Amino acid sequence: MSPEVLRFELSEYKTRLEKARAAMEKAGIDLLVVTDPANMAWLTGYDGNAFYVPQCVAVSKDKDPLWFGRGMDANGCRRTTYLGEDRIRSYEDHYVQSDTLHPMTVLSQIIDDEGHGSSTIGVEKDNYYFSALSFEVLSAALPNATFKNADRLISWQRIAKSEREIEYMRGAGRIIEAMYQRISEVLRPGAKQSDVVAELTHAGTRGVREYWGDYPAVPNIGAGADAAAPHLTWSDRPIRPDESIFFELAGVHKRYHCPLARTYYLGKPTPQILDAEKAVLDGMQAGLEKALAGNRCEDIANAYLTQLARYGLVKTGRSGYSIGLGYPPAWGENTASFRDGDKTELRPGMTFHFMTGLWYGDWGIEITESILITEGQVEFLSNVPRKLFVID
Amino acid sequence: MSPEVLRFELSEYKTRLEKARAAMEKAGIDLLVVTDPANMAWLTGYDGNAFYVPQCVAVSKDKDPLWFGRGMDANGCRRTTYLGEDRIRSYEDHYVQSDTLHPMTVLSQIIDDEGHGSSTIGVEKDNYYFSALSFEVLSAALPNATFKNADRLISWQRIAKSEREIEYMRGAGRIIEAMYQRISEVLRPGAKQSDVVAELTHAGTRGVREYWGDYPAVPNIGAGADAAAPHLTWSDRPIRPDESIFFELAGVHKRYHCPLARTYYLGKPTPQILDAEKAVLDGMQAGLEKALAGNRCEDIANAYLTQLARYGLVKTGRSGYSIGLGYPPAWGENTASFRDGDKTELRPGMTFHFMTGLWYGDWGIEITESILITEGQVEFLSNVPRKLFVID
Repeated sequence: MSPEVLRFELSEYKTRLEKARAAMEKAGIDLLVVTDPANMAWLTGYDGNAFYVPQCVAVSKDKDPLWFGRGMDANGCRRTTYLGEDRIRSYEDHYVQSDTLHPMTVLSQIIDDEGHGSSTIGVEKDNYYFSALSFEVLSAALPNATFKNADRLISWQRIAKSEREIEYMRGAGRIIEAMYQRISEVLRPGAKQSDVVAELTHAGTRGVREYWGDYPAVPNIGAGADAAAPHLTWSDRPIRPDESIFFELAGVHKRYHCPLARTYYLGKPTPQILDAEKAVLDGMQAGLEKALAGNRCEDIANAYLTQLARYGLVKTGRSGYSIGLGYPPAWGENTASFRDGDKTELRPGMTFHFMTGLWYGDWGIEITESILITEGQVEFLSNVPRKLFVID
Repeated sequence: MSPEVLRFELSEYKTRLEKARAAMEKAGIDLLVVTDPANMAWLTGYDGNAFYVPQCVAVSKDKDPLWFGRGMDANGCRRTTYLGEDRIRSYEDHYVQSDTLHPMTVLSQIIDDEGHGSSTIGVEKDNYYFSALSFEVLSAALPNATFKNADRLISWQRIAKSEREIEYMRGAGRIIEAMYQRISEVLRPGAKQSDVVAELTHAGTRGVREYWGDYPAVPNIGAGADAAAPHLTWSDRPIRPDESIFFELAGVHKRYHCPLARTYYLGKPTPQILDAEKAVLDGMQAGLEKALAGNRCEDIANAYLTQLARYGLVKTGRSGYSIGLGYPPAWGENTASFRDGDKTELRPGMTFHFMTGLWYGDWGIEITESILITEGQVEFLSNVPRKLFVID
């Protein structure tokens, strides 16, 4: 494709490739087979919705990355990446969902042809989209190669964002603001959950000014007792008076995410949820005060949990995770988490979803922030009032 | 959960379990670890958006299925399945995305406790959501077990739909009709792609009457030369006069899909695309005449391709696939395909997306149908005019 349609300067892709190669060198990897769609996009620009069939980007020490995928998706590669024709390879369609053929046999031949049949090959062993069978077929077809687990090797290179990446994430922040604005307008007792989701999705896809909305992973919704479960979705059940409902959504621009959760109460809030609101907001404040370059990820979690404990509340899940470029089914980067024991040092350019949600037996509350670590105070990627929204 | 909130009668889940067990027996499998989210839902009702972390349903010969997932998702299991508390097991949150701990070690202990440490265990080796590392950890922790690949074993049990499933798919058909109705209203030269997607998504989520819209996998859009690539999405680029744009979308109700593609031309269509329209429609007619119980999947593909060839057109990809219950990233069932060599016999209740799309170097056209095989003539799951839509 012509460079001006790429989402980043060629120089930025070059820098990324250099970072990837340095990490490969350090890990003793000659060839890295990258199957995480976000990692594939980060390295090459590839932006296709075809991750339900085997595909990858193979990175070596010297040549340009090699894209490998289904034949019909090669045009998508040509149209979204900087790769030359000689670095685009594909398999024929009868390899798709076959009981007798597997695309990884084709890839093994390409790897061998590229001179890597006896190399140390890194694979992302715990990535969805790199199945157990993919690994089995690939490793059996390359008996002289040595395979190393390279989970998160590329993902970790993505953790500190460039200026352009931050610009896209701030754009996603404008989008999530518009989504919550729309929810506040339409969420009323009697409104169908699905109708509310239609409105927030509409706002999220239209976007704001030049920040058009891209597709997110699935929105999570929890109304009434369903708020006890963080990953349910919706039905057409009408929103009831005197019940709470949380939304965990993301604004997305050019595949960069700004997730944010808010909880609404329809009617006069119960003392239980008002107490929880106060605990969460106080805890968030304590955590945010630790969101400074030089501190560690666990510092934020521990500050949050310590403050929660003063209110008699316990959270068992992690309190946040790194965010940025992502593809369904998730918008997390699978690297740093806000939890005890995570010693990742906070550095300027890192972006996180401070996921302060609480879920108990028959209720829950989610009020969260997406943040950017800077040289100074923490920056919020969006500006949505940080409170329990009450709709009378 | 209370049975009246389940999407199917308990008797239907019982029938499914019996089919699963018969297939396991035939395959010599004592315990089946099901990781495909659609298969998990089909067996138990489980409907959570948590497939980005390891989870599964384990099916044995005698006990109720066992749900295994992340601790915070156990409430989602309680609220969407018929499983009793003793069949819901989970792992603690520090197992999530850890470099040192893996949820499969917890599962291996549960499997051992259930008396299956030396059993023959089936796993879905080529399923996304069952990673290479998941298999490695699970098999290493159960050294006395024998592992068998059980890819598509459950998926094949889903291929003929029940009356209730067909009702949901017809509902999804109403939804896709509303989506194309909306596209026809708003698609004009100068409209932003993202704004058009906002409208179609809004219509798809609101749904029609009692058929509320559930979340689909990602919509595919191809405008202008991007129509050469089947799996690209959108940006805010305005739709241009004298260009074509295809949409490949799905209406979704209660996770059951009705996919459908249509192509629009803005202005006076070129002879090339009018010829392609005629070829596709004639080819579809030839294929649809073969969509009768007793024929085979390949018969439909071969009739389509033979007719296309009379127009000098070639299609290299498969011409259709089984559809039904699905979760992102795809709405296909990964079983039968319309392609040469697929001898699957068509039976009443089977549902397919007759995927007749054509993609070439710098253009493409998609006009498709989702169909139900019956005792008699083929039934269309939706009623959207089968033609190239021309917008003057």
